[in-house]
Amino acid sequence: MDFAHSPRAREYLEKVTAFVETEIIPREREYLEAQRSQADRWAVPPLIEELKQKAREQGLWNLFLPDARHGPGLGVAEYAPLAERMGRSLIAPEVFNCNAPDTGNAEVLVHYGSDEQRERWLAPLLAGRIRSAFCMTEPEVASSDATNMAATAVLDGDEVVLNGRKWWSTGIGHPDCKFVIFMGLTDPTAHRYLRHSMVLVPVDTPGVRIERMLPVLGQYDEPYGHGEVSFTDVRLPADAVIAGPGRGFEIAQGRLGPGRIHHCMRLIGMAERALELACRRATERTAFGKPLVDLGGNRERVARARIAIDQARLHVLHTAWLLDTAGAAAATGELSQVKAAVPAMAQDVIDMAIQFHGGAGLSDDTPLTGFLAAARALRLADGPDEVHLGVVARRELRRYRDERGGRGGNNGNNGNNENNGNDGQGEQR
Amino acid sequence: MDFAHSPRAREYLEKVTAFVETEIIPREREYLEAQRSQADRWAVPPLIEELKQKAREQGLWNLFLPDARHGPGLGVAEYAPLAERMGRSLIAPEVFNCNAPDTGNAEVLVHYGSDEQRERWLAPLLAGRIRSAFCMTEPEVASSDATNMAATAVLDGDEVVLNGRKWWSTGIGHPDCKFVIFMGLTDPTAHRYLRHSMVLVPVDTPGVRIERMLPVLGQYDEPYGHGEVSFTDVRLPADAVIAGPGRGFEIAQGRLGPGRIHHCMRLIGMAERALELACRRATERTAFGKPLVDLGGNRERVARARIAIDQARLHVLHTAWLLDTAGAAAATGELSQVKAAVPAMAQDVIDMAIQFHGGAGLSDDTPLTGFLAAARALRLADGPDEVHLGVVARRELRRYRDERGGRGGNNGNNGNNENNGNDGQGEQR
Amino acid sequence: MDFAHSPRAREYLEKVTAFVETEIIPREREYLEAQRSQADRWAVPPLIEELKQKAREQGLWNLFLPDARHGPGLGVAEYAPLAERMGRSLIAPEVFNCNAPDTGNAEVLVHYGSDEQRERWLAPLLAGRIRSAFCMTEPEVASSDATNMAATAVLDGDEVVLNGRKWWSTGIGHPDCKFVIFMGLTDPTAHRYLRHSMVLVPVDTPGVRIERMLPVLGQYDEPYGHGEVSFTDVRLPADAVIAGPGRGFEIAQGRLGPGRIHHCMRLIGMAERALELACRRATERTAFGKPLVDLGGNRERVARARIAIDQARLHVLHTAWLLDTAGAAAATGELSQVKAAVPAMAQDVIDMAIQFHGGAGLSDDTPLTGFLAAARALRLADGPDEVHLGVVARRELRRYRDERGGRGGNNGNNGNNENNGNDGQGEQR
Amino acid sequence: MDFAHSPRAREYLEKVTAFVETEIIPREREYLEAQRSQADRWAVPPLIEELKQKAREQGLWNLFLPDARHGPGLGVAEYAPLAERMGRSLIAPEVFNCNAPDTGNAEVLVHYGSDEQRERWLAPLLAGRIRSAFCMTEPEVASSDATNMAATAVLDGDEVVLNGRKWWSTGIGHPDCKFVIFMGLTDPTAHRYLRHSMVLVPVDTPGVRIERMLPVLGQYDEPYGHGEVSFTDVRLPADAVIAGPGRGFEIAQGRLGPGRIHHCMRLIGMAERALELACRRATERTAFGKPLVDLGGNRERVARARIAIDQARLHVLHTAWLLDTAGAAAATGELSQVKAAVPAMAQDVIDMAIQFHGGAGLSDDTPLTGFLAAARALRLADGPDEVHLGVVARRELRRYRDERGGRGGNNGNNGNNENNGNDGQGEQR
Repeated sequence: MDFAHSPRAREYLEKVTAFVETEIIPREREYLEAQRSQADRWAVPPLIEELKQKAREQGLWNLFLPDARHGPGLGVAEYAPLAERMGRSLIAPEVFNCNAPDTGNAEVLVHYGSDEQRERWLAPLLAGRIRSAFCMTEPEVASSDATNMAATAVLDGDEVVLNGRKWWSTGIGHPDCKFVIFMGLTDPTAHRYLRHSMVLVPVDTPGVRIERMLPVLGQYDEPYGHGEVSFTDVRLPADAVIAGPGRGFEIAQGRLGPGRIHHCMRLIGMAERALELACRRATERTAFGKPLVDLGGNRERVARARIAIDQARLHVLHTAWLLDTAGAAAATGELSQVKAAVPAMAQDVIDMAIQFHGGAGLSDDTPLTGFLAAARALRLADGPDEVHLGVVARRELRRYRDERGGRGGNNGNNGNNENNGNDGQGEQR
Repeated sequence: MDFAHSPRAREYLEKVTAFVETEIIPREREYLEAQRSQADRWAVPPLIEELKQKAREQGLWNLFLPDARHGPGLGVAEYAPLAERMGRSLIAPEVFNCNAPDTGNAEVLVHYGSDEQRERWLAPLLAGRIRSAFCMTEPEVASSDATNMAATAVLDGDEVVLNGRKWWSTGIGHPDCKFVIFMGLTDPTAHRYLRHSMVLVPVDTPGVRIERMLPVLGQYDEPYGHGEVSFTDVRLPADAVIAGPGRGFEIAQGRLGPGRIHHCMRLIGMAERALELACRRATERTAFGKPLVDLGGNRERVARARIAIDQARLHVLHTAWLLDTAGAAAATGELSQVKAAVPAMAQDVIDMAIQFHGGAGLSDDTPLTGFLAAARALRLADGPDEVHLGVVARRELRRYRDERGGRGGNNGNNGNNENNGNDGQGEQR
Repeated sequence: MDFAHSPRAREYLEKVTAFVETEIIPREREYLEAQRSQADRWAVPPLIEELKQKAREQGLWNLFLPDARHGPGLGVAEYAPLAERMGRSLIAPEVFNCNAPDTGNAEVLVHYGSDEQRERWLAPLLAGRIRSAFCMTEPEVASSDATNMAATAVLDGDEVVLNGRKWWSTGIGHPDCKFVIFMGLTDPTAHRYLRHSMVLVPVDTPGVRIERMLPVLGQYDEPYGHGEVSFTDVRLPADAVIAGPGRGFEIAQGRLGPGRIHHCMRLIGMAERALELACRRATERTAFGKPLVDLGGNRERVARARIAIDQARLHVLHTAWLLDTAGAAAATGELSQVKAAVPAMAQDVIDMAIQFHGGAGLSDDTPLTGFLAAARALRLADGPDEVHLGVVARRELRRYRDERGGRGGNNGNNGNNENNGNDGQGEQR
Repeated sequence: MDFAHSPRAREYLEKVTAFVETEIIPREREYLEAQRSQADRWAVPPLIEELKQKAREQGLWNLFLPDARHGPGLGVAEYAPLAERMGRSLIAPEVFNCNAPDTGNAEVLVHYGSDEQRERWLAPLLAGRIRSAFCMTEPEVASSDATNMAATAVLDGDEVVLNGRKWWSTGIGHPDCKFVIFMGLTDPTAHRYLRHSMVLVPVDTPGVRIERMLPVLGQYDEPYGHGEVSFTDVRLPADAVIAGPGRGFEIAQGRLGPGRIHHCMRLIGMAERALELACRRATERTAFGKPLVDLGGNRERVARARIAIDQARLHVLHTAWLLDTAGAAAATGELSQVKAAVPAMAQDVIDMAIQFHGGAGLSDDTPLTGFLAAARALRLADGPDEVHLGVVARRELRRYRDERGGRGGNNGNNGNNENNGNDGQGEQR
């Protein structure tokens, strides 16, 4: 057992850390002011391109991709601490070209895209010239149960026709967002995991319409944003279907594991920065003759936050290591564990930091409310906490049920082809 | 012991309930759409004046005032359940002319205002023709400790001169907001509770400047809003000082008790409505073949919310009853108790309701994010939870400390002239 | 709305309070030492009879009975604060002849007993000469679901024959325990609420055997204790069946409401005393140069305990008032609410008080571990918390289901005329 | 980063796991019955010696000692998972000769003992022929602050004289307990960390008296037990002072780190077994037509327990790794973190398992109440949670205070060279 990062991971960690702390965080205020002063809140302040350029020059680019053809080819566990560092600033992920959902979309195209899709969409995406969105969740149904999905992707001769309404399509507000990956029902008569397809849809295809942008706790997260998007008789050549019809679930599954690790690590970065801001504030501000941190239970709050963050980080790193060494199927339970635990932890720590800041914490004078929105949203996005707790419980109980019929497992990490129907349900988003 | 409301309170409760449920809530969407479609987000949709007119015609107007000259003269405990009903809709309080901080400002003018102040400011305020704000909290200091207050209200001949910066001045964004009550330091050499004054300041006085409006978790709560306001050499006649110099704390204290009850009861109304929305959603939506409410621990969440709300309501009603029957001093501990307990309870219930709604809960499609902002803000406004917990602890411990020197109390409700220095500190905002 | 107790209730409250504080609590140590020094841990130290005599002389006797023929005839809400005071000492309830399950058994006999049963068993019970137990829960089945009950009470000519095994029969260890009330299945073909009977069984009836006494968290709670009791072909005259065959559920239901109030109020008394002990300890002990209470978050713990206790008390008092004024059926939801909330609250406060005491808190040097066992047991006794949360949730959701067209849901706990149906299931123990 | 155990650690883990599951757990009932049936509850059922013999033969003996002269010489992180397995049964640690406080005492003698002490006491201790206790905590003072310690170890010529009263001396009830290590004040004028000495005291030395055995939540944990021990003019040769006078703190510090890891890992083992028992019970028992686990929020409870246990295990393993690779000083903060977090986690999981068992969980029919007592005690033993939270907070805040110019704050716990100073205070027990 060795908790030390590999030399290569440490090297990247030092570089990314330095970049975030010296290039990005000191310029957050400048970014915010640029954003506030520009006529269009959805425009991207030029600062971002400047920082992207600098990051790319330093080789801090597309670090999320395990594929060595497109970067350093770091493993999930090696990338994880970098994602944490990027999480410390809401503008950092884009700077390193490591922003969701571009990361997941890029992985999909690397693994399942056609050569043409790779050339036309993946290349500029990896170059940071365009951005993308992912259209899966639907407003009319409980999308935590993927079998509820109502949007359609129907083959019609050599075309595929899309209809339906999606929302919480993150990133679609960005001026550079040029394509989305759309998931829809293709063949309702097929096996439940073979019914859906993923389709690459250029944003300017006729019939695609952004109905509105959605706030998260009042924040639109410009210039990325979350859109409600309607698809009305959207016609595309059949080869827009990624990897062919019926492979939507398969693709979604592969996309999910690393994405959850990234989300969780970024949230841990937000929690760390929130704790740091809280500590600074509480040592600097004075009330009743003492620094705030020495009032009431504040020191215990700091300690509990430290413990919660450290436990969460180890939990996610262990899960990433499992993903790297044993594969996504073996890590299913752990992925649900961290998904259920980390956003809630981050929400609590950030809420505490807000409280330490008094009124300032409620406003947009600190990144805390943005962090809070991110953490709160992640308790729902990619499957609500409760669905993931259900997956964890099912895996825990399975061994005792099995025992009563026959064989038993020996510990939580076990099981290879154990994926049956229900497990999948909670893991599709 | 009788938990039944008086016939008069029941009658008002029925009327207000009916008004909220049939006149206001069904028009929330219309209000929201009007607000979204108007050029100026800070304009008041005409709907409001229409509803105000109707409420006033039904005698549902200024119900908060215990003073029978200005309405039915309901006691705090009689008004409390009405405040709960008004809390169910973010637009209801204004409709009944019962919105904070106008309520507290009106009480101040009823009790301490000069005849001229009453005529010029109180009359239109009670008529719903103008609105007002309260300027106490400051950005540069931990305002939970009122002795930190840095803004000044200095007498200069027959004038008073104000300087300083205030923020979280709620309601100042409203187009009808015509005056603020400003609290500042007048005589730093006086006894700590005789140093400050309250001054009535017309908003258009030279030197008063709204620097910016502040969001709460991304929401500006238009058309009320929370402002950061600078006062630069603002000169007013000395009779603008309410009740004369040095009485700021005295006035603040009297203002706080009923205000806390109102805030808490409105939050209970929000929590009730959040629970109602959660139950409806969770019985209507289906996932994995069941209504959401039958998945995981959702039923227990509903039960715990019911318990938490009912306990909170009884707690606040008991405190209101104490305030009515034994006075503000006797109720100090209980006021801090409910202040520390109710906003956090409401935040939890509302957060749960958001979770039940999935993505919709995060957006502004329901009143839930507005409720969340209100509850979250109240954990800081009017003294952070932690300061109030400190007051509660001090009162609890006092009897044991006293015992060790001499006399002891006999139970939490006791104590008449026990107010000493520190208690006041946490109770000034 | 009036939170003041009636003059009569206040008078009794003062008397009981004084008795507990001056007669009982100062003699707890003497009691403990007597108990430790006697050869038989299950003998009753003579002190108890002395105190009983004194209480009876002061008219502080059988206060729990609303029936004016047997005492002052206090309502449930009037008795509730007295039960709280009795809860402050583990030996107090017996002193006032108000100990469970004698209280519930006495109520059963008052309402349903035959004249002969009243004369032979009720009279000495109310005189404090004998004690009793209640045999309902069974070891082999989840007794929270009363339909699981397997013990039988079968009529055979003019006799009733009992078979089965019960446990957690509280009080059966007491040397004066002379009878039990046994609940068993009489007619499995009858309506589910007409199948069971209650039978009065003298403890010395052949076939009744105390198999063992059960500890609660290691404590046997001598001389009362909790027994596992077997009934093997126990034959009694048919008139031992209380109120006749098939009325077991009906009787159980009537017995439950007041009993829950009593339990909850005693727990509130324990929580109050625990908080008092905690405050004393934490102001007297010093570490790191400060009283313990000024270290870390201890003051917040004191404040939160105060809030939790006060909310719980109001909650139970309100429920008692409902029981008195609207009847048991109207109070079903509230009874489940307090049953689910109060023992857990008490457990938390007591655990906190233990922590404040350091090692001493873990030992039997204070009443805290006895209180902890009582609170912990009550989270299971009389229906586990979770069953009661289920009742609360069902009632909360019913209105929304009803709204949607009168039909019921299909959830497992859901009957059609469920009010009289399943609700009862969780309420039988 | 590699979360896999070393081959050697895996091999021991397999062996210890197999031994616990096949040799120990199946005989727990036999042990319990032997213990219940023997006249003296403090006698050791013969079963134990039999199991010890078998474990020793398999080389599963003294595994806790990193020193290769006395066993396999496993590192702390290698031993940690073995300690977890031993924690699954309350009788397992002794079977492997790995019971506290013998483990810590053995480590003290290995590192600091004289040759004579090693021969006379260490050898039989490591052979499992004798047992020992540790006397540090005192009843009269808050022992979390070691400077409160009042017992004395005064040099008088070539003798050392001990006086004072200790309690919570674990293991002193065991019939084989032959010596204790006593900590006392030697030179009150020395530097605070050079004042105390540790003295090896044969239990039969005149003046040593076990005043009583102390229950933990009603349980005496026979045959180990926790004693209150008085030392009255206990005279020993001066060479009984371990490593010479004034080195008490130094020795205590070295003893603490591994001990905390062991305690935490055993608690994790208890929590795992509690969860296993809970899952079995809840899949086997039925109520309301369903297995218990499918009622209410029970599945979420299972999931949250799984998450909490896994996070805690990673946390402790990481701390153990730090201890192994960077030393005790570097791991101080992490040791306090796990000490503050793991016992509370275990208490919660065990409490949940008790609830799943209904009445049976409260009794001694399962190991759960024993586990609960162990977890609850550990929230106080070896420094209360709150003291450790204080250490964690201080370390967290130090960097921000340092940043502000090297000066310290004025909070009570705060020295200047506080690293060696106050941190120690909370870590001495």
